Amino acid sequence: MNTLEAIHARTSYRGPYTDAPVPREAIVKILEAGLAAPSGCNKQTTSLIAVDDPQVLKKLHTVIDLENAKTAPVWICVLTKRIIAYRDKCFATQDYSAAIQNMLLAIVDLGYETCWYEGHITDADRIGRQMADMLDVPQDMELVCLLPVGVAAEKTTRREKMPFMERAWFNGYRRTE
Amino acid sequence: MNTLEAIHARTSYRGPYTDAPVPREAIVKILEAGLAAPSGCNKQTTSLIAVDDPQVLKKLHTVIDLENAKTAPVWICVLTKRIIAYRDKCFATQDYSAAIQNMLLAIVDLGYETCWYEGHITDADRIGRQMADMLDVPQDMELVCLLPVGVAAEKTTRREKMPFMERAWFNGYRRTE
Repeated sequence: MNTLEAIHARTSYRGPYTDAPVPREAIVKILEAGLAAPSGCNKQTTSLIAVDDPQVLKKLHTVIDLENAKTAPVWICVLTKRIIAYRDKCFATQDYSAAIQNMLLAIVDLGYETCWYEGHITDADRIGRQMADMLDVPQDMELVCLLPVGVAAEKTTRREKMPFMERAWFNGYRRTE
Repeated sequence: MNTLEAIHARTSYRGPYTDAPVPREAIVKILEAGLAAPSGCNKQTTSLIAVDDPQVLKKLHTVIDLENAKTAPVWICVLTKRIIAYRDKCFATQDYSAAIQNMLLAIVDLGYETCWYEGHITDADRIGRQMADMLDVPQDMELVCLLPVGVAAEKTTRREKMPFMERAWFNGYRRTE
């Protein structure tokens, strides 16, 4: 798929997945895409765990209430380490977001669907930490995002967005030229 | 360019740019790519201003110390509005980072180079606010990132990254299968 095509084809898929597996070769390509993202001062604060072992998936499923996502054959868990880039500056959120965006595009490019689930697991009930413990993730890393990966069983849909001219301008705020 | 190709071709280019212009058509494609990124609860917290008017660029140049970036014919300024997505949750940083990553890829795909400049303008000296004021950006929006866009005058270089197995695993922390 062409880059711009993938960028515009990507949607947040919240439906169920078919039982078609995602081969390891494809998973590696997705993870590599994530790691290819830039990071503030090259601190590489993002790490990734792909879960495709049905036993491990089953364990993770017990702590999270996302019925459709549970039908996906792979879950990619995004980990971050809040390393200071310089002085008091930490770019870990920017770093993992860029890595996630690369993975969203790689996933669509390879014919799969996904959705960026973050609020569900970083909320006060700390589901992310429960998942991290199940995966033996050390305490200095946070599990901040879950990406289910698989073949969509339903059509993708698209939420409406504001028109271009409400969000993008030239040479000044709300200037059109 | 193929999506995965663009993901791996992207580097942080900090060199000078040639005087080849970037046509408006290409700028619009880059901005559209940015706006196509997802946002937490679809709040669309990110806005963009592309500056290609030499007079406006000259003004912006007076407040920032980035000699090479000043040779670029276009600067894309990334704005964010820290809207609450739900309860106390704000995903504005994630939102603009995903938008930036899409733009980095679109820029490379279209044959240009760029670099994500954020720390330079969000630091204590508040250069971002000075730039925002020059562009008439209202006070409830922050200018958080600058992307120069143009044709690279020098070869791109690549910073070294940790090997795959130091950052990506399967089914558990540091597990290889």
